[in-house]
Amino acid sequence: MVGPTRFMTLLTCCELGVIDALRKNGRMTAAELGEAVGAKPDAVEQLLFLLVKEDFLRYDEEAGAYFPGPFFGGIPEPALQHVVSFLNMIKVVMLRQIFYLTESVKTGTVVGLDKLFGFQGNLYEAAAGEHTELREAWAPMMDGVTGQNDPWFWSNVDIPAGSKVLDLAGNTGFGAILTYRNNASPGLHVTTFDLPEKEAPSLENFRAHGVEEHCSFIGGDVFDGVPKGFDVVLIKNFLDMWDREDVLRILTGVNEALEPGGRVNILVPVYPEDIKDPASAGVDFFPAYFLGCTMGKGGPQKMSTYRRWLEECGFTVTKTVAQDLSTMPGALVAHGILCATKA
Amino acid sequence: MVGPTRFMTLLTCCELGVIDALRKNGRMTAAELGEAVGAKPDAVEQLLFLLVKEDFLRYDEEAGAYFPGPFFGGIPEPALQHVVSFLNMIKVVMLRQIFYLTESVKTGTVVGLDKLFGFQGNLYEAAAGEHTELREAWAPMMDGVTGQNDPWFWSNVDIPAGSKVLDLAGNTGFGAILTYRNNASPGLHVTTFDLPEKEAPSLENFRAHGVEEHCSFIGGDVFDGVPKGFDVVLIKNFLDMWDREDVLRILTGVNEALEPGGRVNILVPVYPEDIKDPASAGVDFFPAYFLGCTMGKGGPQKMSTYRRWLEECGFTVTKTVAQDLSTMPGALVAHGILCATKA
Repeated sequence: MVGPTRFMTLLTCCELGVIDALRKNGRMTAAELGEAVGAKPDAVEQLLFLLVKEDFLRYDEEAGAYFPGPFFGGIPEPALQHVVSFLNMIKVVMLRQIFYLTESVKTGTVVGLDKLFGFQGNLYEAAAGEHTELREAWAPMMDGVTGQNDPWFWSNVDIPAGSKVLDLAGNTGFGAILTYRNNASPGLHVTTFDLPEKEAPSLENFRAHGVEEHCSFIGGDVFDGVPKGFDVVLIKNFLDMWDREDVLRILTGVNEALEPGGRVNILVPVYPEDIKDPASAGVDFFPAYFLGCTMGKGGPQKMSTYRRWLEECGFTVTKTVAQDLSTMPGALVAHGILCATKA
Repeated sequence: MVGPTRFMTLLTCCELGVIDALRKNGRMTAAELGEAVGAKPDAVEQLLFLLVKEDFLRYDEEAGAYFPGPFFGGIPEPALQHVVSFLNMIKVVMLRQIFYLTESVKTGTVVGLDKLFGFQGNLYEAAAGEHTELREAWAPMMDGVTGQNDPWFWSNVDIPAGSKVLDLAGNTGFGAILTYRNNASPGLHVTTFDLPEKEAPSLENFRAHGVEEHCSFIGGDVFDGVPKGFDVVLIKNFLDMWDREDVLRILTGVNEALEPGGRVNILVPVYPEDIKDPASAGVDFFPAYFLGCTMGKGGPQKMSTYRRWLEECGFTVTKTVAQDLSTMPGALVAHGILCATKA
């Protein structure tokens, strides 16, 4: 019951500047904090009860002074910014939209985007278009996630020298650029495959990053077929957007486009094999995110489910690796890598 | 981070009818549930991961069937309805409004009511007026809370026979009616004191309940003074709406209106003396409720704080009693009773 209020009470302490003030000044009373952030001390005191309860802050009863607990006292500024960007994404993109979660589940559409922004479609379309509020909340969070996951992905995935690589649903080309940079070899060529309207920004990004000789773009819809002639297909942060039948269509399309021995490398959030594992908050977060806020459908699966689906679509799985959440402080959910070869 | 999503995922399973279907039918697959509630089985499966994680439901992997866990399997229908009415209040009254919590704290007004409903004022005014959506979500929850607290209050509070009782901020007279019924004695008279616009509905309620000879109404604003001539003043579910300075004005006004030896009996939610007590979710819930959704200010205090404020205002505290949350399954926060006498 108290999930929404706990969330917003914490974020409001960040938004008001209470946390910054305490990190800067060390110890402050409610009266000093109220003056510093432009709020009534009574209200500051009410908000800070929870932060004391959860040991985010500590309270010196004798002096009436608050000071940072271990988390806010110790976290470096960039890491704190990443946490706050995640909280802000949840607030801006999700908090109001999930009011309509039941309607979204029933209709298979993102009812919240329609009701709140007058937008019919999915979050990615809305954020790519005129809805700057959504883009500005979503993009920094996603950049942070990519920044965490990309080095890990490339430390686990091998692209043979001189490969022709297809980055499926590669958006505006950044995935292709990073693929080239992380695997540069004579003859390596990376092609972004996405909807035709992504071509111009992709080509511009290739030029801006000086990789226009090694990267190119093919426009199309993955559900109409996957381009042929590639040795390796990458599917990053994409399968979790779709229901089972669509994932099978995508994987079947990739299988049909590859020659025997051709490879697919997948990056996707995964639920833990033991759903009750308290270390993962994936099932706490993603169903509402995908069903209610972004797609009106989809959601991640367990690694074993993706493995089974790959095999159903004619692949031999050669490697699976899941992130270890115990080594990732603050991360909500582990991503997984699945590498497979066309049988 | 996952508070809002956990909350709405659970409530959506109730709203869709998944819980009702499983309580009625015992065991169902995602496909059967999808058909029963009019949603895609893939989406049902995504939502139910969390309910399995938290043991609200259980999953028979071999049969692919879900069935109720101990909570949903055991809770009687009326108790379940009360829980769902609380979840629904949080959704309708709070989930969208707390988006504006920071702005509400800064301005001391309920910015969410203005932004979402075009209403300037507090929740109680909005719900009493044209905003039926808010009233219909708030009133059943509040009725349930009153139903839980009223017998407990009267088992702890003694009204001397023949007293003249003032029910401070008594709204439309129901508190006066219950006070009379629970304490009927020759000469007992209970007066509701509230804003003048509550007079007509109060008198109508007194007549409808046949207590018009024992109950009456005085119109006025507690901050302009409290009527004199009463032996006992009741202050129920009211002090928690105000900041310290306002609580002190209310208590001082009551003290000035009473003769020495006159009594005040207070019912109010209280935070635990040890704020870190995990059994109470008061500080998790009320700051966002009062600051962001109802008043733009206020919030409960610890029993010891109310006791100190009563003493500051010229009272001798004769009794304090707090609810024991361990005996109240499902309750978020303990209420307290404070009885005091004018010194």
